[in-house]
Amino acid sequence: MAKKLPPETKISTTNEEQILVRNKDLVHELIGKVSFTEMFFLHLMQRMPSEGELAVFDSVLVTLMEHGLTPSAIATRLTIMSAPESVQGAISAGLQGIGSGLVGTMEGMAKNLQDIMEADERIEAICLQIATSYKKSKQAIPGFGHPFHKPDDPRTPRLFEIALNAGVKGQYIEIVTQLSKAVDEVYGKHLTINAKGAIAVVLSEIGVPWDVMRGIAVVTRSAGLLGHIREEREHPIAPFIYSHIEKTVPYTGERKLDEK
Amino acid sequence: MAKKLPPETKISTTNEEQILVRNKDLVHELIGKVSFTEMFFLHLMQRMPSEGELAVFDSVLVTLMEHGLTPSAIATRLTIMSAPESVQGAISAGLQGIGSGLVGTMEGMAKNLQDIMEADERIEAICLQIATSYKKSKQAIPGFGHPFHKPDDPRTPRLFEIALNAGVKGQYIEIVTQLSKAVDEVYGKHLTINAKGAIAVVLSEIGVPWDVMRGIAVVTRSAGLLGHIREEREHPIAPFIYSHIEKTVPYTGERKLDEK
Amino acid sequence: MAKKLPPETKISTTNEEQILVRNKDLVHELIGKVSFTEMFFLHLMQRMPSEGELAVFDSVLVTLMEHGLTPSAIATRLTIMSAPESVQGAISAGLQGIGSGLVGTMEGMAKNLQDIMEADERIEAICLQIATSYKKSKQAIPGFGHPFHKPDDPRTPRLFEIALNAGVKGQYIEIVTQLSKAVDEVYGKHLTINAKGAIAVVLSEIGVPWDVMRGIAVVTRSAGLLGHIREEREHPIAPFIYSHIEKTVPYTGERKLDEK
Amino acid sequence: MAKKLPPETKISTTNEEQILVRNKDLVHELIGKVSFTEMFFLHLMQRMPSEGELAVFDSVLVTLMEHGLTPSAIATRLTIMSAPESVQGAISAGLQGIGSGLVGTMEGMAKNLQDIMEADERIEAICLQIATSYKKSKQAIPGFGHPFHKPDDPRTPRLFEIALNAGVKGQYIEIVTQLSKAVDEVYGKHLTINAKGAIAVVLSEIGVPWDVMRGIAVVTRSAGLLGHIREEREHPIAPFIYSHIEKTVPYTGERKLDEK
Repeated sequence: MAKKLPPETKISTTNEEQILVRNKDLVHELIGKVSFTEMFFLHLMQRMPSEGELAVFDSVLVTLMEHGLTPSAIATRLTIMSAPESVQGAISAGLQGIGSGLVGTMEGMAKNLQDIMEADERIEAICLQIATSYKKSKQAIPGFGHPFHKPDDPRTPRLFEIALNAGVKGQYIEIVTQLSKAVDEVYGKHLTINAKGAIAVVLSEIGVPWDVMRGIAVVTRSAGLLGHIREEREHPIAPFIYSHIEKTVPYTGERKLDEK
Repeated sequence: MAKKLPPETKISTTNEEQILVRNKDLVHELIGKVSFTEMFFLHLMQRMPSEGELAVFDSVLVTLMEHGLTPSAIATRLTIMSAPESVQGAISAGLQGIGSGLVGTMEGMAKNLQDIMEADERIEAICLQIATSYKKSKQAIPGFGHPFHKPDDPRTPRLFEIALNAGVKGQYIEIVTQLSKAVDEVYGKHLTINAKGAIAVVLSEIGVPWDVMRGIAVVTRSAGLLGHIREEREHPIAPFIYSHIEKTVPYTGERKLDEK
Repeated sequence: MAKKLPPETKISTTNEEQILVRNKDLVHELIGKVSFTEMFFLHLMQRMPSEGELAVFDSVLVTLMEHGLTPSAIATRLTIMSAPESVQGAISAGLQGIGSGLVGTMEGMAKNLQDIMEADERIEAICLQIATSYKKSKQAIPGFGHPFHKPDDPRTPRLFEIALNAGVKGQYIEIVTQLSKAVDEVYGKHLTINAKGAIAVVLSEIGVPWDVMRGIAVVTRSAGLLGHIREEREHPIAPFIYSHIEKTVPYTGERKLDEK
Repeated sequence: MAKKLPPETKISTTNEEQILVRNKDLVHELIGKVSFTEMFFLHLMQRMPSEGELAVFDSVLVTLMEHGLTPSAIATRLTIMSAPESVQGAISAGLQGIGSGLVGTMEGMAKNLQDIMEADERIEAICLQIATSYKKSKQAIPGFGHPFHKPDDPRTPRLFEIALNAGVKGQYIEIVTQLSKAVDEVYGKHLTINAKGAIAVVLSEIGVPWDVMRGIAVVTRSAGLLGHIREEREHPIAPFIYSHIEKTVPYTGERKLDEK
């Protein structure tokens, strides 16, 4: 199933006095010297970020951390009510929802951009072709459209601005701009590049492969879920959510309760 | 079970053009302006950190992110082999182990420090009393001792140095120093203040309550686990772990396989 | 930390033609010969159940499988909406809530019964003492009381009846009857033995230790959660739950959205 | 995103004296009257199983429950060591691996059988076409082949025998027999129908849709994992697994620890 390679790891080693992580001395070169974001980038990308990459990576983590009473936040709050002893379980319940609904759109956008980048054809042609194929298949085109934020998601221009100020090449921003034009033309209306789409763009600009984008969302969302746990402990709303849903969603099974 | 309070949340709200998180405008005051660590602190503590608090919080996140092939990392790697489509599931499998074994010692240390802080007695007396009571009960005293790092955990002085440089009051560092003397006296040998103990100390210095410390470990460890997922994809060792354990752990059930 | 024992397992082994599980040949002695419940009991208790034990074990599994739109079921449904590709993740999100709130009461009842069983004192005295101590501490007494099912939980007499018909000794039923009298006397009103309390009683009758009762709830509840996943797919209510909660729980943070 | 249907549930309702689950009275018609397997089938399929369906469903649950020290079992054992207080977390860690590696093959087989069933072409032709297309794409053909059990998986004929004795129509068994011939012809060697393939066949025979098969594996495997938790508590091997893997998997990072 998997390639037969000798078992080994390059991540970390330790002896009585020293701990190495990704070729750095943890105590003398990392703790107190680098931020969480630098350490996370180092671990994930196996090199320290430039100042610009750091700005982009932080902007993505900040954008994705918190979105209010999402399905994930509700799941986490209901869990901490039922199992107050398990913070890790409550966070994990919320993280299970970081699936194709949420991050699929990031991954889908990133893959589309990659395909356009590698195509031999003229960029306008391939963009129109992609937009048309989504429209025909009646699937949502990943990274475009938003239920509330209309006409445009306010996070998107901010993320692009930060990336450009940070000195990225801008090639993915250029491609997505072309793709956006094609989408509006094919769909016959304006669909905003949403925050998840924009994140796929700026992470691509700093070399993050699409297949770890989901994990980045998991990490920062876990911080947001911990904030919900703390609020839930101080001001519980899960009991309300539970009893309210029970009352609001009627039972419509064929057999009714016996008359008393 | 829970207090009857009106259902409400103070975390986040949004309209077409604006997103507020913890009383800040996400687009104009957070994205591109604050780091992940500032945003995480803001969310958890409901206020922006001072420069010193930020330094301490970052040092804790950096210290806890990665510890090599831990039980958590092994669980994550085995899971991404079996369910390659679910990064959130693989991270979550590893996070389940952030339980009383790991973070219990942080929480236990933080609670002991709190008790000492609030006691009316002389500090030497209460420290001796706590150390004696753990020794008698034959339980490990939380935050002390380390299997490899002897005589001292190298992370501990570094964390204290960062905290003191960052301008914390130093009252918990003082208490733990007293407690450490009492521990050495009562146990009749030197037990290092380990990294988890030191983290409990410095987080207490910046006002983080003990009952969210576990969650902080969950957040930063999830970043470490994503690093393991990326290495596992590029150089899989889970197949080796699985087959090696199967070969190394003998079956000793009463009934044996039929002779062929 | 853990006892140093040679690594070994007695659960299962296999060769090209044969698979042994708990000293039985899987193909020839288990598949097609035993039910899920017999196999589960065999695995957990390391012996085949008697007919009576089987009846009791099945009655417990059937009682615990499904309880309607519980917090667990809501968490599972919100998760399958967000991550439709991960049935295991959605079930796991729901299982995280099988914590001290739900199964703590089973475990607490089972431990109280055990303490009474092993006490040297007269049973009436120890029962009064336990009830009094819970009343004083203002904690709920585990296994007693129910928010809806008044005056009595209808599942309890049924579970006791099945156990007695199945030929259990009835010693735990006797003890809980005494404890119930003491509870009513001490609290000055009738508190029903609830279903979780009754399950602790009947599982104790067939020798199941308290520390696996939580796991038994996890197993059978996972079947219930799969039923919710199937209904959610055919008739989704998670989108309603999400949008309804968002609308019903007001944002009451200090800072308000900008006037437009 | 999802169809707009009125929020409702047909699963369960309750009042003070009665609990209905899937149109049955829990206390009077289910507890003590039906087995776990009947209750699970009822919940999932919304009808009681026939005697034959029950036999097939039980045989599948028994087959899938336990497979020794699998990646899932190792993840569960490592987790219960690190978080001994959370049985639900340890089971959940193991369940995360019930992903495309394991159950994907069940789902893939079930979908292939469905496609063959619905095709207009002659069955031999379509079987050859499917086998050829997998061979060309160099993907494993789902439900065929086994690393140990050669030439044939002993569970497969047993599962087919039980299904045929139980009176199923046998149409999927017929199709898989044809597909198996095609596979052997196209691959130029014998590939056994493995247990997961056989389970897809017999579950299809009793009308279970492919998209809940993964969930059925989750439910029964959770029982197996609880058995591992109990063995791990009585005879811990997780500390050995952890320290052994740490010793056996070398660190090969570029930077080495300082010479002392």
